[in-house]
Formats: sequence, C-alpha cells, structure tokens
Amino acid sequence: MARYLVDISVEPIGTSSTSLSKYVKIAFEVLKEKGLKYYPAPSMTTIELDDITTLGSLIKEINDRLEKEGVKRIVTIVKIDDRRDKENSIDHKLDVIKS
Amino acid sequence: MARYLVDISVEPIGTSSTSLSKYVKIAFEVLKEKGLKYYPAPSMTTIELDDITTLGSLIKEINDRLEKEGVKRIVTIVKIDDRRDKENSIDHKLDVIKS
Amino acid sequence: MARYLVDISVEPIGTSSTSLSKYVKIAFEVLKEKGLKYYPAPSMTTIELDDITTLGSLIKEINDRLEKEGVKRIVTIVKIDDRRDKENSIDHKLDVIKS
Amino acid sequence: MARYLVDISVEPIGTSSTSLSKYVKIAFEVLKEKGLKYYPAPSMTTIELDDITTLGSLIKEINDRLEKEGVKRIVTIVKIDDRRDKENSIDHKLDVIKS
Repeated sequence: MARYLVDISVEPIGTSSTSLSKYVKIAFEVLKEKGLKYYPAPSMTTIELDDITTLGSLIKEINDRLEKEGVKRIVTIVKIDDRRDKENSIDHKLDVIKS
Repeated sequence: MARYLVDISVEPIGTSSTSLSKYVKIAFEVLKEKGLKYYPAPSMTTIELDDITTLGSLIKEINDRLEKEGVKRIVTIVKIDDRRDKENSIDHKLDVIKS
Repeated sequence: MARYLVDISVEPIGTSSTSLSKYVKIAFEVLKEKGLKYYPAPSMTTIELDDITTLGSLIKEINDRLEKEGVKRIVTIVKIDDRRDKENSIDHKLDVIKS
Repeated sequence: MARYLVDISVEPIGTSSTSLSKYVKIAFEVLKEKGLKYYPAPSMTTIELDDITTLGSLIKEINDRLEKEGVKRIVTIVKIDDRRDKENSIDHKLDVIKS
C-alpha cells in the first residue's frame, strides 16, 4: 500500500491529429518500466506512489518520450491524494466505490 | 455513444472526517437516478453526456444532496473531453487503453 | 457577489500549432458577451457564476466558437468552488491571498 | 524565464472549518522560502519552475507544513504546461491575455 494516489492525464498540444492514443501508450510504457502500480480509466490514470518526490521526474520522463515523438507542448493534469491518517491504495478505493 | 466524456471528482471541504466515501456514494446515486452511463475509477468518475448543457444541473443536484448531509462547501474538479470529429464513449476509450 | 467560483482552462487538441492564444481570446469574448465577471490568470480564468446550471451552455458556446475556427477536439478543465455557508467572490478571494 | 508553468491548488480535507485561507497562506510561505516566482489567482496559484523534478518535494513540503497544522488529508490539483518549443513565463502569459 502506498501513501499517495496520483491521477494523471497527459494532453499533448499542437499535434495536428486529434487522436492521442499513441501518446497514452507511451505514458503507460514509462509507468510499466518504473514498476509502478497503476489503474487506467477512460480519461485519467491513477498511480500509487510511495515517494511523492519522484513525481516530477516521472512527468519529465513521460514528456521527454513524447518530445521524441515530435510533441512540442504537453499539458499534464495531476490530482494528488495525500492521506496522513492512514495508508491509501487503488484496491481500497475500488472496494469503496464498488461496495 | 455520446459526444462528451466528463470526468468528475467531488471534494467536500470542512467535513471534520477525512473519509469521503459516504459522499461519493451519494454522488453515484444521483448518476444512477439520472440514468447516466458512468465508469468509477479510484479518484474520479467518467460520465457519458449527450447534452453538455445538463452538466451544471447535475453538479447542482449532487451538491444539493451533499448539503442535506451537512456539507457546507464542495470543490468539484471536472475534465470535459469534447470531440467534434467523431463520437466518444467510455467503451471506446477503455478499448484503446487496454489494447 | 456570487455563489459559485468557477476556474476554467480550455485546451484545444490537434491544432497543429502549439500557440493557443487566439483560442483563449475567443473564450474571453464569450465571457464578455455574457456579461460575466472574470479574472484571467496565466493558465486559468476564474469566473463568478450565480447560476451553476448555466455552466454547460457556457462551455458549449466556447467550444462551438472554437469549432468554427477549425478546432476538432477540446479538453476543458473546470474547478468549481460551491460555498453553501457564505457568499463567494473573486474580490474576496483576492483580498485573502493578498493580505 | 522558465520551462514549466505549474498551477497548484491545495484542498485540505476533513478540517471541520470551511475556511481554508490560513492553509493557503502556509503554502505561499513555502513558495517564498524557496524563492519561486508565483502569481496568486483567486482559486489557483501559478508557479514558474525551471526544474520540474522539484515538483514532488515542493508538494511534500507544503503538505508537511499543513500536517503540522493538524491537516490529515490533502488533495492537490496541479496543471503543468511544458513547452518544448520556447521559453514559458508568467509575464509572457499575462501579456497575451491582456492584449
């Protein structure tokens, strides 16, 4: 279980095509390579992070990969849920919403 | 299939308890009563909306219910994906991310 | 003074250019035409709304205008602050942060 | 001028009071101590970051301070604008929206 649940949505800007699926797949590859637990939803992905100080380098790595694909501007939306009173986890949250 | 995919996250403020699960369930009840198709994720819920002009009244109804439970302030985060070039749907998006 | 403070950020997708300033100006025109009080910040604009049920039609009007400029996909990020215990206003919030 | 423009909104959860202004001031203190350039808006603050890898530790420091004030859960909303084609700055963005 993790301390932080982080929702991330990556929006490449100025890509000429409205289809973003290939960029989404690149972001997933980065998450997999880093061994992070994540839960993909239709427009956002929730990630478990034990150490929030790694958030910026994770975003940078995703954006560096997108730049290699020709993306020149990226807007990233992030929502961080930091519970100081108990552990947080994707599985626990899914239990709550499905109960 | 719908025109708009809307991600919603409801954050009651000043509730004394850090647990928000009972409020999340109230929001789901409103979505069910309205017959909306939705996909709950750990920290956000994606909704299909055919008519985006109903968004404000949907948020108002959720907040009115929360106020009845004693909530005095609500922050709602919404992300709207409006495709003018093709239909949009939760199922299609899930196909893309799982492929 | 208003009941709702609404932050809006409009992100056109697939525009080939990374510059979005012309689209931002179109969004401001819509806000002006509707006589809404708003406060533009570098990456978001805060709007006072008395009636939250108008939110969806406001977003639709902005997106309809953007579509006329050739935009085929628009991601809109919205944050709604709904206080049920007191009035809310841009001026009051600015007083707080500047004090 | 900076590479990244980062909008941050901090929402303490379970604080019993609906007033969050004292927590907002704590967040501003952290930004000042770090010597960051920022622009406070009614519901969000825009920060210039040269090095995005510092984002997580910035959020952690704000949340650590809030925890000392008794906050047990914090939701943080972040929007990152990463331009790879040109420098980005608060002043430039303000020029655009005011022109």
